[in-house]
Amino acid sequence: MLDIYQFQTADLIVSGKNSVETLSDKLSVFNPSIKSVLLVTQDGLIDIGLLENVNKQLEKLDASVETVANVLPEPTIESIQEIADDLKGKKFDYIIGVGGGSVLDAAKLLSVLKTNKETLKEMLDTAEVKLPGIPTALIPTTAGTGSEVTPNAIVTIPEQELKVGLVSRHLLPQLVVVDPQLTLGLPKPITAATGMDAYTHAIESFISNKANKLSDMFALESIRLISDSIVEAYDNGKSLEAREKMIVGSMYGGMALTSAGTAAVHALAYPLGGKFNIPHGVANSMLLPHVMSFNLSSIPDERMKLVAQAMKVYEEKDSAEEISFKVIRQIEEWIKLLNIPQDLSEYGVTEDDIEDLAVSASKVTRLLDNNPVALSLDDIKNLYRKLLD
Amino acid sequence: MLDIYQFQTADLIVSGKNSVETLSDKLSVFNPSIKSVLLVTQDGLIDIGLLENVNKQLEKLDASVETVANVLPEPTIESIQEIADDLKGKKFDYIIGVGGGSVLDAAKLLSVLKTNKETLKEMLDTAEVKLPGIPTALIPTTAGTGSEVTPNAIVTIPEQELKVGLVSRHLLPQLVVVDPQLTLGLPKPITAATGMDAYTHAIESFISNKANKLSDMFALESIRLISDSIVEAYDNGKSLEAREKMIVGSMYGGMALTSAGTAAVHALAYPLGGKFNIPHGVANSMLLPHVMSFNLSSIPDERMKLVAQAMKVYEEKDSAEEISFKVIRQIEEWIKLLNIPQDLSEYGVTEDDIEDLAVSASKVTRLLDNNPVALSLDDIKNLYRKLLD
Ligand SMILES: NC(=O)c1ccc[n+]([C@@H]2O[C@H](COP(=O)([O-])OP(=O)(O)OC[C@H]3O[C@@H](n4cnc5c(N)ncnc54)[C@H](O)[C@@H]3O)[C@@H](O)[C@H]2O)c1
Ligand SMILES: NC(=O)c1ccc[n+]([C@@H]2O[C@H](COP(=O)([O-])OP(=O)(O)OC[C@H]3O[C@@H](n4cnc5c(N)ncnc54)[C@H](O)[C@@H]3O)[C@@H](O)[C@H]2O)c1
Ligand SMILES: [Fe+2]
Ligand SMILES: [Fe+2]
Repeated sequence: MLDIYQFQTADLIVSGKNSVETLSDKLSVFNPSIKSVLLVTQDGLIDIGLLENVNKQLEKLDASVETVANVLPEPTIESIQEIADDLKGKKFDYIIGVGGGSVLDAAKLLSVLKTNKETLKEMLDTAEVKLPGIPTALIPTTAGTGSEVTPNAIVTIPEQELKVGLVSRHLLPQLVVVDPQLTLGLPKPITAATGMDAYTHAIESFISNKANKLSDMFALESIRLISDSIVEAYDNGKSLEAREKMIVGSMYGGMALTSAGTAAVHALAYPLGGKFNIPHGVANSMLLPHVMSFNLSSIPDERMKLVAQAMKVYEEKDSAEEISFKVIRQIEEWIKLLNIPQDLSEYGVTEDDIEDLAVSASKVTRLLDNNPVALSLDDIKNLYRKLLD
Repeated sequence: MLDIYQFQTADLIVSGKNSVETLSDKLSVFNPSIKSVLLVTQDGLIDIGLLENVNKQLEKLDASVETVANVLPEPTIESIQEIADDLKGKKFDYIIGVGGGSVLDAAKLLSVLKTNKETLKEMLDTAEVKLPGIPTALIPTTAGTGSEVTPNAIVTIPEQELKVGLVSRHLLPQLVVVDPQLTLGLPKPITAATGMDAYTHAIESFISNKANKLSDMFALESIRLISDSIVEAYDNGKSLEAREKMIVGSMYGGMALTSAGTAAVHALAYPLGGKFNIPHGVANSMLLPHVMSFNLSSIPDERMKLVAQAMKVYEEKDSAEEISFKVIRQIEEWIKLLNIPQDLSEYGVTEDDIEDLAVSASKVTRLLDNNPVALSLDDIKNLYRKLLD
């Protein structure tokens, strides 16, 4: 646990059913006159009507709207830089991102690429964003990354077969709108993978070496909400109640990781995304039970008890071992119920890839440093091997 | 419960033991060069050495520092306007408030009085602050008001014998430093009154008509932390652990009330402060058990159970009536253990004052609207009467 800890988030968060319908009002709290908006999203989301209410709100603003709808899922550094280059010379007062973590991260990066002279590669190399970006509003459509409230953006670097994160308070949005309605149509596999990503943020923040009073509150509440609703949101996607718990839980997961950071699960997941395009939430889900088992010896019993209570698997009579066992078994059960693949070979990973994967993961020191147990290269290899066969 | 709800807070919150020692670093996150600082505090706090570490940090900035140390406890509108007028013509890049709620509210108001042409009276009359103020850093020394994270500032209006609140997002600070060390020397009566104020924020936010998922999390965690530590902080003021729970709990109380608002306790407390100078926390403590009893019929059993659990007075076997009874009895017990006066006549209030007090309280519709039960003028009078003898 850290002695001194900090917390930062968006300037204004609006949440709840149909909260998207407050967008133009909330924008005007900060910005009396917005003349030109850059809307960042994906064609797939426009096609299923997810932008309709947002566009209605933008019409009220009486601003010009330019739409960028070609953000790739888990976007590469080049694909983002390309969009930024295409927009060169155009002026925008405001950027609005509507989509999953991929879109939100892209919107955040486009915002700072507009005001800074450095390229995205230079920002990643120096791990620095010099100037604030154009103000952004972020509207998540997965319950998931929590990217709407984090100062992080993640991009894929295909040459290095890795994913890397840029962290800067200039990536925090001005406005966040968390409307569960937008997630009612999420396909089952995405509900599953993104939901487990959110859960992973919460539990990794809770066991992180940087865990603290502030992050603990968000992490435990996130665990509570997600445990309560993840299976229901998967089985019965139209349940607004389950979707609201999931999307608020996901936001709290983002708040927890902003303060405490994620750890080994995310570090080991990045190369799986970077090399084999395994969706971020799927990679996390696969790794989570194994990394948790590996970490157990260094997580105080009292804290595992809090996790078990938040997940409602705790009983008074349970020994410390039973508590840990129940938490991990519940995670494994979710993975089965949510039909998340559990075998890396389904994605073409073989024993021959383990060495490279492990070397890549071992470089993600920003996250490995947060893990309660230090991981040797062999530890990492053994963890990956558990996912083969 | 609200369907659509919102949350806003400071840009950056740093917390923990000795976090004041990060002040100059954290200031420079936002402001590469601060040339002139206005430090807002009270002589009494300087005298007991509370500003030492803050001043050391300011020396590092190499900025000129002007200190205003004459903020009145529970300041009047005139006293704040006077300070603002005295500072006219002087330029500051940054305002730092170090003190209890009185100082923090003053710092917030001085910040917007510096940039807006309206007087404080005009702001209060129109309930509006037009322009953002000078950026502020707020450092609480009571565990208490939560003012460091709220968009509110409260002033006394002696002519009207009332206290009124100004609410504007421009009153939110840029930086908050919550260092429990600063509260180790709080005198017992102030620990007691300010601590009960914090508890009142949490529980009033939880039962407020504007309660929501976000405010509930902060409210319950605040109730948990304060219930766990208020008596210990009073009995054993040097306990850093108890002080940290109190000051973090107080901050969460402020976050809860920012989203959900306080209710009848605060509405009825304002005239007691405005007319009889009863300290804010004392007035709240006196009223709290009576207003809670009055409200009980409209608080769902399930929610009282959550309160009782957070206070650790809940047992599985308890009926709904027993749960409510235990919560209120615990509050009454605290008031006794903390030696908070329980009789309005100690402050010179007589039956003849009840009418005027009630009329004043009935005008605080901003807060009364949040109360789960509507209060008639007679209800208000009866509640005040319970505090006479
Ligand atoms: N910034 C952060 O803090 C943070 C944290 C974790 C992960 N991430 C990153 O976020 C990315 C993953 O984001 P994600 O998991 O949200 O997935 P995603 O944004 O890639 O979306 C997955 C797929 O779901 C579709 N989709 C999104 N919302 C939909 C909806 N409501 N209905 C139907 N389809 C919908 C998308 O079009 C996409 O095809 C990764 O790059 C990951 O590394 C960022
Ligand atoms: N802005 C908000 O959201 C909000 C919320 C609740 C109350 N308030 C307002 O805040 C004011 C009350 O603030 P408060 O309860 O913190 O009291 P306070 O600021 O008036 O302080 C009470 C006394 O304690 C002294 N003191 C403060 N810190 C000390 C320390 N560490 N050691 C020794 N002495 C110390 C002060 O000098 C003062 O004499 C009222 O005006 C109330 O209406 C504001
Ligand atoms: Fe993630
Ligand atoms: Fe208060």
